[in-house]
Formats: sequence, C-alpha cells, structure tokens
Amino acid sequence: MKGRIIIRGVEHEGQSVDILIEGAYISRIGNDMPQLGADGAIEIDGRGKAVIPGLINAHTHAAMTLFRGIGDDIPLMHWLKEKIWPNEALLTHEDVFWGAKLACLEMIRSGTTSFMDMYYKLPATAEAVEEMGLRSVLACTCIDRFDPVMAEKSKRQVRALFTGMGGGACNPRIRLALGPHAIYTVSGALLQWIDAFSGENGVPVQIHLSETEEEVSNALRRFGLTPVRYLHRLGVLSPRLSIAHGLYVDDEEIRMLADAGVKVVHNPASNMKLGSGVAFRFVEMQKAGITVGLGTDGCSSSNNLDMIETMKLASLLGKAWRKDPETLTAAGMLRSATIDGAEILGIKAGRIEAGYLADLCLVDLNTPAFTPNHNFVSNLVYAANGSCVDTVICDGSIVMQNKKVSGEEEIIDRVREIAGKFV
Amino acid sequence: MKGRIIIRGVEHEGQSVDILIEGAYISRIGNDMPQLGADGAIEIDGRGKAVIPGLINAHTHAAMTLFRGIGDDIPLMHWLKEKIWPNEALLTHEDVFWGAKLACLEMIRSGTTSFMDMYYKLPATAEAVEEMGLRSVLACTCIDRFDPVMAEKSKRQVRALFTGMGGGACNPRIRLALGPHAIYTVSGALLQWIDAFSGENGVPVQIHLSETEEEVSNALRRFGLTPVRYLHRLGVLSPRLSIAHGLYVDDEEIRMLADAGVKVVHNPASNMKLGSGVAFRFVEMQKAGITVGLGTDGCSSSNNLDMIETMKLASLLGKAWRKDPETLTAAGMLRSATIDGAEILGIKAGRIEAGYLADLCLVDLNTPAFTPNHNFVSNLVYAANGSCVDTVICDGSIVMQNKKVSGEEEIIDRVREIAGKFV
Repeated sequence: MKGRIIIRGVEHEGQSVDILIEGAYISRIGNDMPQLGADGAIEIDGRGKAVIPGLINAHTHAAMTLFRGIGDDIPLMHWLKEKIWPNEALLTHEDVFWGAKLACLEMIRSGTTSFMDMYYKLPATAEAVEEMGLRSVLACTCIDRFDPVMAEKSKRQVRALFTGMGGGACNPRIRLALGPHAIYTVSGALLQWIDAFSGENGVPVQIHLSETEEEVSNALRRFGLTPVRYLHRLGVLSPRLSIAHGLYVDDEEIRMLADAGVKVVHNPASNMKLGSGVAFRFVEMQKAGITVGLGTDGCSSSNNLDMIETMKLASLLGKAWRKDPETLTAAGMLRSATIDGAEILGIKAGRIEAGYLADLCLVDLNTPAFTPNHNFVSNLVYAANGSCVDTVICDGSIVMQNKKVSGEEEIIDRVREIAGKFV
Repeated sequence: MKGRIIIRGVEHEGQSVDILIEGAYISRIGNDMPQLGADGAIEIDGRGKAVIPGLINAHTHAAMTLFRGIGDDIPLMHWLKEKIWPNEALLTHEDVFWGAKLACLEMIRSGTTSFMDMYYKLPATAEAVEEMGLRSVLACTCIDRFDPVMAEKSKRQVRALFTGMGGGACNPRIRLALGPHAIYTVSGALLQWIDAFSGENGVPVQIHLSETEEEVSNALRRFGLTPVRYLHRLGVLSPRLSIAHGLYVDDEEIRMLADAGVKVVHNPASNMKLGSGVAFRFVEMQKAGITVGLGTDGCSSSNNLDMIETMKLASLLGKAWRKDPETLTAAGMLRSATIDGAEILGIKAGRIEAGYLADLCLVDLNTPAFTPNHNFVSNLVYAANGSCVDTVICDGSIVMQNKKVSGEEEIIDRVREIAGKFV
C-alpha cells in the first residue's frame, strides 16, 4: 500500500499550488489543501520549483547505454555489422540488467518516468525497471529473417513471455509489447501473426518503419510497395501499432496511418546522427490526426536519453527544414513528449490533473535556463536540458529527490566493469 | 600577481596527468610534477574528472539573456519589431550589466571561458566580464541605417571606446572589436571606415552576413551583388574579419572568403530556431581553408549559451542535411569550439598545452553521459551537455569549483527583478 505525498507551493501553469498524491494517482490540486494528519504523509517543499508531467520516451533500446560512444561517425551498415551486432552477441542477462539500470538512472535524472523499449533479454530489462521504480512498455524483439524455423522460435518466445509476465503485466508499472524489428528482418507471415496475437491479447506493437531512403527503395524492390503500403496490404495497420521513425512517408501513406489509428514516434537525434534525413512530416501527420510522440532511440545512435533535448531537437529540426519559425512550438513539443507519449504507451499519464497517474517531475527554477522566466515552457524546451530536473515521482513513489537517485554510484561502477568487454 | 594552481590526476587524452598553472598560463603537464612548497599554491584533485580547453563562443549577444523566452515561435521580422527592438529601447547600463553577468554565469556553468560579443552599452558588458573573470572580445555595435549623421555618431563612439579602453584592451581579458551589424543596416562607406580603423589599430571585426535567403535577395536587389561579393567589392574582406552565420554562400563566395582569410562562425541553434535553414556549408568552407568556429547567438534566438549543446547541434544538423553520418565528427566539433574559436578571437587558447592560456574546464566523469567511457570526446559532444562541467579556470583563476560560482544567487535575483519590465 502506497502512502500519501503532498507537494506544497509548486509552480503549475504560472500559479503556486499544492498537489496531493494518494497511492499511484494525483488526487487533488489546489490552494486549500488541508493539513495532513500524523499518518506518515511525506511533505515536499515545491517552492522555487515547477511541476511538469513525467516525460515519456516512446522509443528506445535501454540497455544500449552499454554501447554509448562505440562506433560514432561511421556509416549505418558498417556501424551495425562491425560494432553493434558483434557486441550484442556477447550480451548476458546481467549485462542487459545493468545497462537497463543505467538507462533508468539516466532517464530519471532527466525527467523521464515512462518509456517504450525494444530489446533482447526482456526479463533483464523488466527487473531493472522494477527496481528503479519507472514505468515501461517492453517490446519483445521479434526477428525471423524470413526463415520459418526462426519465426516459430519467435512465436514460442512471445507466448512464453506473455505467460511468464502474467498476461503481459507482471507489475502495474511494466507491460509487455511486441517488437517486430523491421520489414527487412521480419516476414509478412510473422507480422500477421504478431498483429493477431496483439489483437487477441490487447498487447501493443512497435516496429521500426520508413527510417531511411534505402529501406524504402529496398521495400519497393522486394515487395513492390513502400513500407506503409506493404503493412497496409498485410492488413497489420491497427490502433495497437506504433511506428518508430516514419521519416519517409508520402501523403497517401500518412492517410493510411491516420485511417488505421497507427501512432508515430519521431526520433530526431537518431535520424540526424545516423544521417537518415531532415524531413520528418510532423505537421502533416498531426493535421491528419495521427498521434506523434517523441523518442531518443538507443544510446548507441543518439547518444543519450534526454527527452528535454529531444523536444528541442524536434522543434529546431522542423523549423529549420521548413524554414518556418512558427511551426513545432515549445508547447506542442511538450504535448508530444507527455500526453501523446502516454497515448502511445496506453497509460493514463502525461497530465498534472486529478485522476491521472502520479508520474511527475519538479524542475529547479533557480538556474540560468529559467532566468528570467517570461515563458516557462519555452525555457524548459529551448533553454534547459535534462539537468534541470530536481525531483521525480513515478507511480506515486519518489525515485529522485534533490537530484539524488538511490544506488547511482553502484550502477555507474558496475556498467564500467561490464563495458570493458565491448569494443 | 596570480599564484600557482596544480591539478592532480586529471584525465587528459586517456592518460592521468598533473597540470601546473603559473600566472595566466599552463606551464607544465606531466606525471612527475614536484611537490610544491608552502608558497600558497592551490591544489585541485582532478581524479574522476577530465580536462578540456575552455570552450569558445565565437558569436553571441550576452545581455540578451534578459529577453530569453520573449517572442518564441514567431517570424523573424515580427520578433524583431514587436518584441526585441521595443524592449531594447528600454535597456539601461545597469540592465545590460546584469544581463551580461547572467550570461557569464551561464557560460561558466557550461564550460565556456571566452566569447565574442556584439551588443549595445559595451562598457556595461565589459564591467560584467571583468567581475566574472571570463575572457571576451567585445564588438561595439555599429549601425548607421545609410544615414551620414548616424555614421559620424558611430565613428565617434568607436573612437571614444577605443581611447577609453586604453587602445582597445582595458584588461588583459577584455579586448575591443568592431561590430558593423549587417549590410542592410550599415552603409558601404561606414563598412570601409570600420575596415580601415580595424587595420590601423589591429582591432577585430565581426558582422552578421548571409544569414537568410531574404538577406541575399535584398542584397541582389539593392547592391546588385550577393552579400560576400558586395563586401569583396567594397574591399573589406580581411583576416581581421569574421562573419556570423554565412548560411547562404556559393562556391565562389567561399573562395573569396578563403582567399581573404575571413573566418566564419556557425550558429546552428539560432539558424534552426529562426527557420533560417539547414544548409550550412561547413565541409566546403573547411576544405577551402576557412577557419570555422561555433557560436550560440543571443539567448533570445537560441535560447541558451551552452557550447556543448552547440557542438552536438552543429554535428547532427550537418550529418542530417548531408545524409552522411561520417561528416562533422565529434572531434572536429571540439576543435571548432576550441582551437578554431581561439583563432577567431585572436587568443592563445583552445589547447591543453604548456605555453597556452590557462583557460580550461574539468568535466565530471561520474555521470551517465560518461558511462561507459569508450570514447570521451564522443560522450562530451553527443551524450553530455553543459551541466557536466564541474570546475572552470580562466586566465589562471578559478571561476567555478564543485559547480558553484560565487554570487550566482544575487545574479539570478537581480535579473528577475530587472526583467519584469520587458514583455
């Protein structure tokens, strides 16, 4: 049974308010909060701080923190073949556990309370998330390389995980999803099986799609269709599906995604650093009614998990490419990183409002980035970075206070030891 | 007379070294540093930290911190006419002093030790820089709006400042420069006078040039030439000149800049946020032999002064636009923000080397951004942000230690009070 937390005198939308948290939820916001009895309620002094919803990283590969800084500034296929795949072959359960713990530490420190992950050795990531107190949707990576034997193995793994995690939710904070890697690594038959499993069991699906021009031209050559049209023909576009990247989609494909209720996750840092391109069609997608969230991608392509930086990059890249300073506003980016991310993860979070999950952050206003404070949201998105976060509450529990996370030294030390074997 | 500082056991290019600073200069680097006598030398424990040269912000408008968050997400001319110019008309000497102090605080906290400024009420900025212990080249803003009376006033102001600052250098850390605002606000005659004054007195010049497509088309209409060709015809391209932005330059203009020894300052955050464009020709300029530095521009267009973020943005924007992950490497960005910036400012800084100015930072390695530490420079540029800086030394004096800058609370409080009048 969780207790009660009261945050006193914190800035929220320009007002000083008190926020009462009971159990995992925000129960009340106002100025007339009663004195709490001697029932062990925790009081947090919110003065000099502003509250924001916990940020939601809608696409990452948490344990890839282990490969941070390996293979930068080299071409994508060289990077994958020479750097990532050989190192991934060495990964143990313990490696993924500590890599994911480091990712959680980094997310907490920069204000992220929930994330959608896709990686190998999912139970190790689940353990790390459970210990660190975050919320996540963990997508089991499915790959068959168009080989029916591998496809059967992948299905068995999905069924076993689903059963093992008690119908997909082993902990109220952790939910199973399915992560077919991409259309060039997963057969159409397995994609259809995944869609059916997802429909029967109410499990979300996330896939990398339309990330590079090369992927599109290969899809045209192999399937005679662009990536979104190919998924449309397979019949696997659904409201349970989100696509990571979606950099190369035309107007008709945007219409197909919108009609099917598919959601999109934009990863500006990764798309930029890997040289994938600048032309993410954020505005057109939102106009068509598509929910667009934001993600960092894994730390070996981006190379951090800072969602405040991600909001800035998404805005600035869009303004620069479109030559339009009015587009992709700070407030719009904050919405994508909170409310829209929550919709993609299927959680009642992303708002500071009674009845919503108590996933929130307090931001320290006594810093240059928030001085002067003519416009808090602009300062948050354009001037600050993840280091502005002072306190993080997830699921009604404090996971960071005064910028300190319990056990952080051990995590850093253990990852340093483990990472020695990766080159 | 400055004392001696010894930094023990700090990481430098993968080795643990001791660094001896005597007066304003680095005097020795090695592992066999003698014990120092009882002469008051300061010892700094560098263990768990890495040393980097102090970063150099080669284009900013320091006191514009006062306008941070005013007028975001609106078009450039609207922003200037409705937001910036009316507020600038209200600026007093004291406002600029405190705005510049806030800028210095922010620069110190994010590892910048030197900057090139262009703003009004230059003596107020000089006072702030002097107090805060940073190094700067302060360009006196020159504008005549093609009016000979204003031109004469501008010349008088330049002469008075030059005399008042003792031949341009009132303090070894502060040097005068000339800042003709742009070719659309300064007449050709004044540009030629500025070039002559600069040549006679050895004073650097910086101008905003080729920032937007509109500027180029206006120059073609008004002068019959693109901006660089126009300066070339005026005969004012020289090794004393640096141009801020230079976003729209063709191959021949790059050749003209290179031949004349003109330097260029790239401001990725500002170019992106104002929607100026993505196509900065970094690679072509460097190939032609042009020194390219990095800048943040002022806080009302960018909206912070974090040069670590700027390095990342410059690299990512270039990779994305060129669709080339191999270009604009982390090491190249660090060089632009240090060695190349020092060349633009005309200072012997930007390297951790005996005989160079003791302008340097210690970076805290016990954070997620530097874990694991497979590649320190990659972590610095791609994973970290300005908050990684723990200690800053400028001109042989400690200006920040353990992330604390003397007087920071007062600066934040005073700017909050002052900023109330700007809307």
